[in-house]
Order: sequence, then C-alpha cells, then structure tokens
Amino acid sequence: MTAKPPNPQRRSQRSHDAILAAALDLCTEEGYGHLTIEGIAARAGVSKKTIYRWWPSKGAVVLEALHEAADVAVPHVDTGDLATDMRTQLTAVITFLSPPSHAPLAGVIADALRDPELAGPVHDRLIRPRIEEFEQRMRRAQEQGQLHPDADLDVALDLFYGPLYHRLVFHLGFPEPPYLDKLIAHVIRALTPEKSTRN
Amino acid sequence: MTAKPPNPQRRSQRSHDAILAAALDLCTEEGYGHLTIEGIAARAGVSKKTIYRWWPSKGAVVLEALHEAADVAVPHVDTGDLATDMRTQLTAVITFLSPPSHAPLAGVIADALRDPELAGPVHDRLIRPRIEEFEQRMRRAQEQGQLHPDADLDVALDLFYGPLYHRLVFHLGFPEPPYLDKLIAHVIRALTPEKSTRN
Repeated sequence: MTAKPPNPQRRSQRSHDAILAAALDLCTEEGYGHLTIEGIAARAGVSKKTIYRWWPSKGAVVLEALHEAADVAVPHVDTGDLATDMRTQLTAVITFLSPPSHAPLAGVIADALRDPELAGPVHDRLIRPRIEEFEQRMRRAQEQGQLHPDADLDVALDLFYGPLYHRLVFHLGFPEPPYLDKLIAHVIRALTPEKSTRN
Repeated sequence: MTAKPPNPQRRSQRSHDAILAAALDLCTEEGYGHLTIEGIAARAGVSKKTIYRWWPSKGAVVLEALHEAADVAVPHVDTGDLATDMRTQLTAVITFLSPPSHAPLAGVIADALRDPELAGPVHDRLIRPRIEEFEQRMRRAQEQGQLHPDADLDVALDLFYGPLYHRLVFHLGFPEPPYLDKLIAHVIRALTPEKSTRN
C-alpha cells in the first residue's frame, strides 16, 4: 500500500462530526450542566481551539448536534392517516424530550431562555426547519382530505406541539399513548371549521 | 412616644417580604443570570445567612416570589363569558412571560430544566395551585353552559396554555390579540364534543 497524502477537508469533516457526536453523547451521559468544551474536546480527540474555531459556546455545539440529529429522531411520516402519523411524530418528540435523551434539548432550551445569543439560532436553525416540515405534512393532509382545507396551520402547530412544552417546563409529565390519541383527536376537531361531511 | 420592644416575628416577616421583593426587582432589572444571593441580600438589607436560612438557592427564592406574585399578576376572572375571560387570563400570562417582567419566570424555568431539586417545587408550588384555579374556572364555565359538560379539563389545560410555552422555549413570539382570539375559539371548539345546541 502506498500512503495517501492527508486530505485536510476530510480530516476537518471527521473532526466536526466527532465533536458533534461527543457533545450529544456526553450530554446524554452526564447532563448538560456537566458538559464542558474541554470534555467534548477530550472525547472527540481534538483540541479546545478546534472547537472554538467553529462554535462560540457549548450551547452552540449542542444546538448544531441537535439540528443534525432531529431529522433522524423526529421525522414526519405519511401513511395517509393524519392522526396515526401525528401520534408517530409526537411520540418521537416525547422520546427526544424524555430521559435518557432529554438532556441536550432541555439544556439548549434552558440556556437559550437566558442567552439572546443562543435564542436566535435555536429559532432559526433548530425549530424553523422543523416547522416547515410540519407545514408540508399538513398541506399533504389537506390535499388528501385528512385535514380541512381551511384549517389554520399556525393554530395546528400551536395545538399539536404546545402541550409537550407546557408539560416540559412545568414538569407535568408527558402524555401517555391513550391520552395522546385523545389530544390529537381534539386538535383535529379544533382545526375542522364545520362538521365534516366524512363524519 | 415610648419605644416598643422589638417584635422578632414581625421583623422576620418584614425581612422575608423584603427578600422576595428584592429578588423579583433585581431579576427584572438585571436578568436572572446576573442575580446573586449577595445582591438580593444587599438590596433587601439582610445578611446572606438570613436568606440561606430560608432558601437553598436563588432559584428557590425567585420561585417563592413568583408564587406570591402570580395570584396578583395572572388571576382568573369570571364575567360569565369564557372566551373573554380566557383572553384576559392568557394575556396576563403573556405579559408575565414578556420583557420586562419575563426574567424571573424564564430564569426559574431554565434552572428547573437542569436541576431536579428545583423541578419538584416548580411543579408543586408554582404550577399546581394555578392548575387548580384553572380547573375551578372551567367547572364554573361548565355549570354556566359556557363549556360543554363533557369537556376534558386536562385537554383544556394542554390546549389553552401549551401554545404559550412552545412559543417561549423556541422564541417564536407570543400571540397578538386577534390571533389569540382565534386560538381560544379553536380550543373551545376542540372541547365541544358535538355541535352545540346554543350555536
């Protein structure tokens, strides 16, 4: 075998990925409060300087890791049944917000509540792309006749997701399956302006 | 005038009240992140030891201050019109969660997301009494025929309050008056199992 010349771009990408993976893993294992840039650097096998070259704070590292993880963790599915698909989606979000995987998102949410520098990125990078995916799923439901064509998608977002975060911030416990189905049925009724002809 | 002997109980109550007022004021003025037990002690004219005698952390001080402030700041009114009264209530909560008064509640919420020692008291002391008041208001609405007798009050709580906290944690901005009315109308429809005869 002949030794290949090192590829700086590939090595850089590998460090980048290792840092994000280390941040999520450490946060899940030890809690966001115990996470440090030093700890991430050690786990990822990079220098602190490398991390600070790309991110200004541990919150920013975890935010980017969450952004990359979210598409895998909380996808929107389309089986043609809106209630079933929202149950799948909300169950995935609940899992993402529950121990043992809750620490990264809860930590970033907590930091951003007190740090305007992090609040903007939480809105722009983390939640805005997810809201767009949600709206696409709702529009497909409208095309398929699963959701009323006049349903207000801002209200849909507020009512489907709001309960999870009210429960998160006040430690009220997340909905269990039978109650979650009831909640979803209520939201779909709220979004149906008049008695549907389908029922 | 004859000097009265000092009344330790009254003095103690006065210190207690001064500490809570100082904690809320400082938090609103400078932000929860800058609040310290030392600063609270200086503003209230007591020693740090006095504060630590009653509370284990600044989060615990602010939590108690919020608990006392909440009944005044976010009361449930009863004009006999549920939609109007929920608009009044939710508008008060939005004010409580918006600058300049947002720092104490947002700070305690953020701390409690990472500190199980504070999460329990946030649930038990801060939110549980408010949920009981909400449920009483909903039961009166049911008695008055303003809310369907079969309406699920857990769902009512989730749908009325959820949107505010989803918007808080993701920095989505709080509902403006016309949209808030729309949201309330949607929730009341969700809670109405079949077409109301009053309609």
